[in-house]
Amino acid sequence: MEKMLIGQTAKPLICTPVVGETQEKIMAQLAQILEKKPDIIEWRADFFEQIASTDAVVDVIEKIRKAVGDIPIIFTIRSSREGGQPISLQDAAAIELNAEVCRKTSVEYIDCELSNDPEHIRYLRGIATEYGKKIIGSFHNFTLTPGPEELARKFDQAAQYQLDVAKVAVMPQKLEDVLSLLSATLAAKQRLNIPLITMSMGKYGAISRMIGGVFGSSLTFAVGAKSSAPGQVPIADLRTALDIIDRSMGE
Amino acid sequence: MEKMLIGQTAKPLICTPVVGETQEKIMAQLAQILEKKPDIIEWRADFFEQIASTDAVVDVIEKIRKAVGDIPIIFTIRSSREGGQPISLQDAAAIELNAEVCRKTSVEYIDCELSNDPEHIRYLRGIATEYGKKIIGSFHNFTLTPGPEELARKFDQAAQYQLDVAKVAVMPQKLEDVLSLLSATLAAKQRLNIPLITMSMGKYGAISRMIGGVFGSSLTFAVGAKSSAPGQVPIADLRTALDIIDRSMGE
Repeated sequence: MEKMLIGQTAKPLICTPVVGETQEKIMAQLAQILEKKPDIIEWRADFFEQIASTDAVVDVIEKIRKAVGDIPIIFTIRSSREGGQPISLQDAAAIELNAEVCRKTSVEYIDCELSNDPEHIRYLRGIATEYGKKIIGSFHNFTLTPGPEELARKFDQAAQYQLDVAKVAVMPQKLEDVLSLLSATLAAKQRLNIPLITMSMGKYGAISRMIGGVFGSSLTFAVGAKSSAPGQVPIADLRTALDIIDRSMGE
Repeated sequence: MEKMLIGQTAKPLICTPVVGETQEKIMAQLAQILEKKPDIIEWRADFFEQIASTDAVVDVIEKIRKAVGDIPIIFTIRSSREGGQPISLQDAAAIELNAEVCRKTSVEYIDCELSNDPEHIRYLRGIATEYGKKIIGSFHNFTLTPGPEELARKFDQAAQYQLDVAKVAVMPQKLEDVLSLLSATLAAKQRLNIPLITMSMGKYGAISRMIGGVFGSSLTFAVGAKSSAPGQVPIADLRTALDIIDRSMGE
């Protein structure tokens, strides 16, 4: 099976998050997830209780790699500011952990929030390039959907930092917000030449996880074992929906 | 099984068009369609070669009724102006045929294009009310998607004529047009209190046939045997997609 990278497939990739607290739980969850054949895995390391130990983190990644084979891995430390678990690491230490993961592991992608210190982002960009890793520049808002200009700015920021992928995940307060996110995705897709990952979260946004690919989102998150954000759809349902959309638009 | 009427169900109804030229072909097609269990049937009488004979039309409806049992029937003469087959009847004669169908048959719905002479629409409204039939006021554009104001006007027109349902089917020229149609649907749903049927047609619009219900469309057309408009999805795929959307939004 050829390795599928973000932005290189006709249909959006289905990514399943792994959110265990211990190596044991992570590996058990991963086994469950792999049965459902996700295209890509995200390890949400902010859930990991030993996140302060670089060795423990590197060790988990090595074990994940053994289990997933060629399936690409996204390494993510989601900050509590953007919906992640509270962790003991300060921003600078989290960036340094990301750098170490670039140096010492085989992950394909590192998630880096666009709200980080610009110096930190540029530092990580340098290290990632040196070690052949791609960076997903991400923005999350779990409360609301910013207006079109602010959404556009987030996509543009990721491109300006020369990151490899731009991710925007926002919460709709009304159905119209779901359309705004799709519209902003479409516009960014036409303006920029990096792959995008976008979603409208929660109950209203669930459809964006299915149809986002039509508007330019190259990856969608699905529940394998345990969801990592509101509105994620079970992987089997999501795959069926993507297949139907693909068939009906391919006429 | 309780009869399901437009606007009275949580999920949009799946309507399958019947488009045969002869009674024999119509009944054969209907048998094929009924195996797939549509919620509602539309007989596109403009395909029927004996449309100039009221008796022949009434006879076909009686046979359709026998075959479908309680499934509601929409009787539609689509004009060639709005994408229908060329027929020998002038507008006034077509309206009179609609009136006769109200008087003499058990159909639940009559389609009446909003582009008809206002006098004709008001006349048909009176007859339909007298005979307990509902009218779907429809607008089609197979070339483009009008701007938001014009779309809003079409919905409002149906309400002003006191019709029972407003239908708007338009062609997207770009993906953004699909979002415009969904947005106009959502706004009309919040403004008016009649059920709506909306769709964006063709390849780009196919997703609107699946997610339109989320934005306020109460009915979606699916291919049973033969499609009647571009972008219609097979009924089995459409039903699966509606179920997945319903599950994922019902959390």
